[in-house]
Amino acid sequence: MQAPLKTRERIIQASLELFNAQGERSVSTNHIAAHLEISPGNLYYHFRNKQAIIAELFGEYEGRVDSFLRLPPARALTIDDKTFYLEALLAAMWHYRFLHRDLEHLLDSDAALAERYRLFAQRCLQGAQGIYQGFVGAGILLMNPPQIEALALNAWIIMTSWVRFLCTTSGKPGDLSEAMLRRGIYQVLALEDGYIAPPVRESVEALYRKFHVPLEQVI
Amino acid sequence: MQAPLKTRERIIQASLELFNAQGERSVSTNHIAAHLEISPGNLYYHFRNKQAIIAELFGEYEGRVDSFLRLPPARALTIDDKTFYLEALLAAMWHYRFLHRDLEHLLDSDAALAERYRLFAQRCLQGAQGIYQGFVGAGILLMNPPQIEALALNAWIIMTSWVRFLCTTSGKPGDLSEAMLRRGIYQVLALEDGYIAPPVRESVEALYRKFHVPLEQVI
Repeated sequence: MQAPLKTRERIIQASLELFNAQGERSVSTNHIAAHLEISPGNLYYHFRNKQAIIAELFGEYEGRVDSFLRLPPARALTIDDKTFYLEALLAAMWHYRFLHRDLEHLLDSDAALAERYRLFAQRCLQGAQGIYQGFVGAGILLMNPPQIEALALNAWIIMTSWVRFLCTTSGKPGDLSEAMLRRGIYQVLALEDGYIAPPVRESVEALYRKFHVPLEQVI
Repeated sequence: MQAPLKTRERIIQASLELFNAQGERSVSTNHIAAHLEISPGNLYYHFRNKQAIIAELFGEYEGRVDSFLRLPPARALTIDDKTFYLEALLAAMWHYRFLHRDLEHLLDSDAALAERYRLFAQRCLQGAQGIYQGFVGAGILLMNPPQIEALALNAWIIMTSWVRFLCTTSGKPGDLSEAMLRRGIYQVLALEDGYIAPPVRESVEALYRKFHVPLEQVI
């Protein structure tokens, strides 16, 4: 039997659910308190404002991405690692999807978060370059260093812009589904399509089928 | 000698300059009127509010992109066409850079503009697919239809997200330079790098050199 969550954790969890379902802008601390049937004062005892809750959720997201966006120590990468990275990115993106939808607005209203995000982005770009380099080292991708730099940058932009693209182009902003995000991961995978080493081509195509969602289902 | 611009055209032109320099959110109709040394009443005679000016500028941008994002009639594409498309995209992006910086906010505050943007995005995606298909037909790119679909989508996302990426990651939001946008075009070009037909490889590499800006100069 699980121990009941402490109030602080319940606030975090309910905020994430409400932000994901309704968008961060539509959810106030009063909504969160009412949803949990606690008093606003009780909520403020734990978090001085909504920004503090968002910062906590961003910290969780950041910690999660930092934990998997790196090379395994002391072994070569395999195609299974590629599946692992893509699934991990999809899960993180889905779990914290409000961050991807409202990012610009969140960063505009919190300078400390904006600075933290900037450092996070730079770590991710480094991490992604290291991983692509690892796939080159393992003979899975055929690329030179300028290609790796450009690819890592494009992967970061597609990852972080996909949800916004859906919102501005599909005209269904409130309605993100896991399939819609899966197509975003497919788009990231498609970035390396021209660099796949012939011997692993078939295994990578199986991955394409795994992540492919027809565009008509998405926009 | 040029005839003096009519007031309506002067308002459009000054608004574009101020939006590009200061960001659309920092510029009010009063600022625009003061900048032109006309009364706010005179400005309102031509445009009922700032949204109407933005819609006019978006219309210009849309018309410009629609005019070049298509295939030349009745001839095969060449490498020079690739240069043409990239230069035209860069020029349009630079000329209307405030649209790229503040897009989400602009669409949030104007439902009619959001719908128009949605249709524009879909036309651009179609146009881009047609052009990539044209390069395949001309033997310049080697791709199949799913690759073309994924590439066109990624190119659209990189194009429309590049300025925002710079703003969130470089921490220099007010300071866009033409070189920064040039690197964005390089990133779009890099998307097709794995699909270049060997005989044109050398000509495309000359294009890379033309658009390459070191990342350190950009973020």
